[in-house]
Amino acid sequence: MTDFMNEYCMHTATCGELRRGDVGREVVLTGWAWHNRDHGGLIFIDLRDRAGYTQVVVDPDCVSADDFAKAEHLGREYVLKIAGTVRERGAEAVNPNMATGEIEVLAKSVEVLNTSVTPPFSIEDGIETDETTRMKWRYLDIRRPEMYQALHLRHTVAQAMRGALNERGFLEVETPILANSTPEGARDYIVPSRPNPGRFYALPQSPQQFKQMLMVGGIERYYQIARCFRDEDLRADRQPEFTQVDIEMGFVQGEDVMNLMEDVMAETLAAVGVEHAFPLQRMQYRESMDRFGNDRPDTRFGMELVDITDIVKDTGFKVFSSVAQSGGVVKAINAKGAGDWSRGDVEKLADIAAENGAKGMAWIAFTSDGKEKSPIIKFFSDEEFAALKEAMDVEPGDLLLFAADTYEVASAVLSALRLHMADALNVPREGHQLLWVVNFPMFRYDEDEKKYAAEHHPFTHVLDEDVDKIESDPLACGSYSYDLVMDGFEVGGGTIRIHNADEQRAVLRTCGLTDEEIDEKFGHLIHALELGAPPHGGIALGLDRLVMLLGGKASIRDVIAFPKTSSASDPMTGAPSAVTGRQLKEVNLRTL
Amino acid sequence: MTDFMNEYCMHTATCGELRRGDVGREVVLTGWAWHNRDHGGLIFIDLRDRAGYTQVVVDPDCVSADDFAKAEHLGREYVLKIAGTVRERGAEAVNPNMATGEIEVLAKSVEVLNTSVTPPFSIEDGIETDETTRMKWRYLDIRRPEMYQALHLRHTVAQAMRGALNERGFLEVETPILANSTPEGARDYIVPSRPNPGRFYALPQSPQQFKQMLMVGGIERYYQIARCFRDEDLRADRQPEFTQVDIEMGFVQGEDVMNLMEDVMAETLAAVGVEHAFPLQRMQYRESMDRFGNDRPDTRFGMELVDITDIVKDTGFKVFSSVAQSGGVVKAINAKGAGDWSRGDVEKLADIAAENGAKGMAWIAFTSDGKEKSPIIKFFSDEEFAALKEAMDVEPGDLLLFAADTYEVASAVLSALRLHMADALNVPREGHQLLWVVNFPMFRYDEDEKKYAAEHHPFTHVLDEDVDKIESDPLACGSYSYDLVMDGFEVGGGTIRIHNADEQRAVLRTCGLTDEEIDEKFGHLIHALELGAPPHGGIALGLDRLVMLLGGKASIRDVIAFPKTSSASDPMTGAPSAVTGRQLKEVNLRTL
Repeated sequence: MTDFMNEYCMHTATCGELRRGDVGREVVLTGWAWHNRDHGGLIFIDLRDRAGYTQVVVDPDCVSADDFAKAEHLGREYVLKIAGTVRERGAEAVNPNMATGEIEVLAKSVEVLNTSVTPPFSIEDGIETDETTRMKWRYLDIRRPEMYQALHLRHTVAQAMRGALNERGFLEVETPILANSTPEGARDYIVPSRPNPGRFYALPQSPQQFKQMLMVGGIERYYQIARCFRDEDLRADRQPEFTQVDIEMGFVQGEDVMNLMEDVMAETLAAVGVEHAFPLQRMQYRESMDRFGNDRPDTRFGMELVDITDIVKDTGFKVFSSVAQSGGVVKAINAKGAGDWSRGDVEKLADIAAENGAKGMAWIAFTSDGKEKSPIIKFFSDEEFAALKEAMDVEPGDLLLFAADTYEVASAVLSALRLHMADALNVPREGHQLLWVVNFPMFRYDEDEKKYAAEHHPFTHVLDEDVDKIESDPLACGSYSYDLVMDGFEVGGGTIRIHNADEQRAVLRTCGLTDEEIDEKFGHLIHALELGAPPHGGIALGLDRLVMLLGGKASIRDVIAFPKTSSASDPMTGAPSAVTGRQLKEVNLRTL
Repeated sequence: MTDFMNEYCMHTATCGELRRGDVGREVVLTGWAWHNRDHGGLIFIDLRDRAGYTQVVVDPDCVSADDFAKAEHLGREYVLKIAGTVRERGAEAVNPNMATGEIEVLAKSVEVLNTSVTPPFSIEDGIETDETTRMKWRYLDIRRPEMYQALHLRHTVAQAMRGALNERGFLEVETPILANSTPEGARDYIVPSRPNPGRFYALPQSPQQFKQMLMVGGIERYYQIARCFRDEDLRADRQPEFTQVDIEMGFVQGEDVMNLMEDVMAETLAAVGVEHAFPLQRMQYRESMDRFGNDRPDTRFGMELVDITDIVKDTGFKVFSSVAQSGGVVKAINAKGAGDWSRGDVEKLADIAAENGAKGMAWIAFTSDGKEKSPIIKFFSDEEFAALKEAMDVEPGDLLLFAADTYEVASAVLSALRLHMADALNVPREGHQLLWVVNFPMFRYDEDEKKYAAEHHPFTHVLDEDVDKIESDPLACGSYSYDLVMDGFEVGGGTIRIHNADEQRAVLRTCGLTDEEIDEKFGHLIHALELGAPPHGGIALGLDRLVMLLGGKASIRDVIAFPKTSSASDPMTGAPSAVTGRQLKEVNLRTL
């Protein structure tokens, strides 16, 4: 890359590249006046560009009086073009913490390409400025080295994935942004079409149906780094528009897509210097739920859920025994290091349990000086208590937290408590851990809507051995499905798709659609499956989230150049505009 | 690429790769039953995938009775998986027109992966099917080899550009699709935001302002293969959403962006096997208008416009002399080969002249047998006629077509006639010709709106020597602007941008904005220019059009996987949907 970095532009060297070996070179640098100071009659400028920064020395004996005057009156963030000579710094002036710290550039001329008013915040990493201010002047925020690094990381990840996919015969195909509405989980954005009064496009929540059509069209290997849209409220890890690396493959089955994805991830992680062992673990959905209480386990630490239903099924603590005897589960985690927490601090955890559906939260603390504290110990027999301690691997200093409820509620409660306690106890979670969670159930029963819904989506191929149960016993059906999990986040999800029209109809009927609704809403898909659809499957990776995790950022807004924020007043990052009368008229909204 | 083509899938060879050297290999092929025929008790299947096709022979002695029965009952476009052995064809059966024509695969097993109902049209290149039918079953249309080749070409062009840009230190940065409205040429699509009743996003007509902000943010080299949107009617060469290769560079001036773009184009053309000489011609805007009558000249043929104003300024043909004496121009083209056209055919050309603003069209025909035919010759003196023939390089068989009007109208008329005559006379236009048209005027005077408007856009940097004339003499101002022209189409356009807030204000004032309007509509841009904006510039290339030209296609719909059509009934390619009541309610349109 370096070869071209100083072509097609005003500079002959970047502010990050000069080293001792360049001493004596005549260079032209451009960049921003970052830190300026006078010292001993000389002016020192740290000149910064995206590649780094270089110390420039302006000596009145070496530049014109005019140029020296310019240097004397530089403001912060002035844009400069400096011609000069690279020279070695004196031994005492070498800065070992700076890539260019062995040299400096002695200016021969100083040109001010542009001035700057005083910036509203300093262009420095780790600034303590509220996000609203940063977003309002996002272009200044992006000038900070850490923001450039984040965008560079995003670029590197995206290009590494493209490279790995291109090499494997994938075609990048663009699918429409102005699409027709297809039934998916979230709300569509709709877009009035001016030449068609009363008619609307919808922005795609994913290119799912388009990529399936491409497989029917014989493209065989498709990808796209695709923008997707959901008309939902903002959250720290959610934006109304987001980017997914969208992949679909023809003539695949079983683990083919996972195998491909692992090779792509291996090349991508290598490109950004992250070490990870492959092949990845493939954990059954049920195992993930059993051990971690969720389907996106952070496997970088333990504190796993333990099922103690059998131990407590006859205990005198009726909350446990009645749940255990009525088909529920009693599970617990061992938060090692919290055994000395005050009763008040422990009982505050019940709020987390309640938020996740629990009616209460039992606990037992084992203090580091060997005592046991708990409102519930008295109900246990000695045998039960001994069995519990053995099952939970109890030592002094441990805190046991319990959930007794349905499997689903107990899982949700302990999953939340486990993650909370890991934060509270500073459990080390260095590095990254990727794994697959596979074989999700095909359907779940939606208690609110009183009907079955597809767990992934209704285009998912049911396990071959379960296809005959789609309508007779939906909850018994497994599916060819796989989520890619990283550090406790779902970063990707995919399935083998249905390629048989009859199976597709059966799944849609089970989801509550009538045959007429199927023809109306999914007729084009059914027709496509009837016209020689090959077996196919795919996956979609959330690029924003993946880069956020790889970059160690707390918010996806730190890896998106112009994210949406609800508060910012800058039109580049702000909330949507009030519509104008002209626009209203043009889209014929009145004709609705 | 081939190394990976048979990994992660059901096949061990593609239908395009087997050659004589593979004889004896055991392979598994997958694909579509393209052409099936019985011959001498054997069944021959041309099995097709995206890579090509291979002849499969099903011999009842080599497969199970079940599998033979399957092969006997194959329909067109059935999806097959064939295991078999590669064998040499007999000398008489070799097909030299087929990449795999020296071999065939003797089947050991035949598996039907999916059936197909009869397709509505044949999966063949060059089919004579109306576009509505092709678009309704676009997934079948894409299965045709020429459509796959077009999408493959598009992929190759896009990846070659990415590669050339990545290598030169460009970052691909994604800018928002849900943006705020900025004043550009065409109508915005607007998108109601559900959580913000009465407020709307706008889809970007280009990422122009975002990329300028990235330059202010120090990204220095940005690109994006970006989707852009204009709420306009459909045309053969225009879609409401289109893709541009969007590029912006910091610390550039003059020809830097053109130099970069030429290197990118050179690598891109090489990647798709197109030869072209570099560096490219750089033609002044004025020269292009003078010689070709437009700013996107097709320089692959002559028939250039000749200014004969001086020759005819005193002629007896008053239409010419009065125009010449009142500040207009008289120009002509020589359509060689049309000299024997009938008077009727020639006079039909006047319609084209009229459509472009002419009040009439004069002509002189020189028949191949040496005669001269024209209603106007009689008005010329011998000297005038001799000078005209010399200026126009007249030979027998030539047809001169004239325009006498303002410079603008005469240019438009003869530009249209020149292109029409090139088509009508089958003037050879093989290959591709790229050139730059540079130095557009900064402003034009809009007669309808009675005000100045920017010729490119109001962010264009005025030539240094003209900056002091922005407000005093707008039409005298040149600009740092460049269009990339290919085969008579504008495939790219760009400018060096304004980086100085005062210049930006002056340009916007000249375009008719008050200071208040400037602050309201462009305040964020002005602020950004005041906060250390570097000199910057860029270009945007129309990817759809470039691929259309490189692929030799007549319509951009042939290089877009799912284009918009006004008539198709398929939801993948059709017109926008009628909005549903649920959607209406959700977006709170009633609150407007």
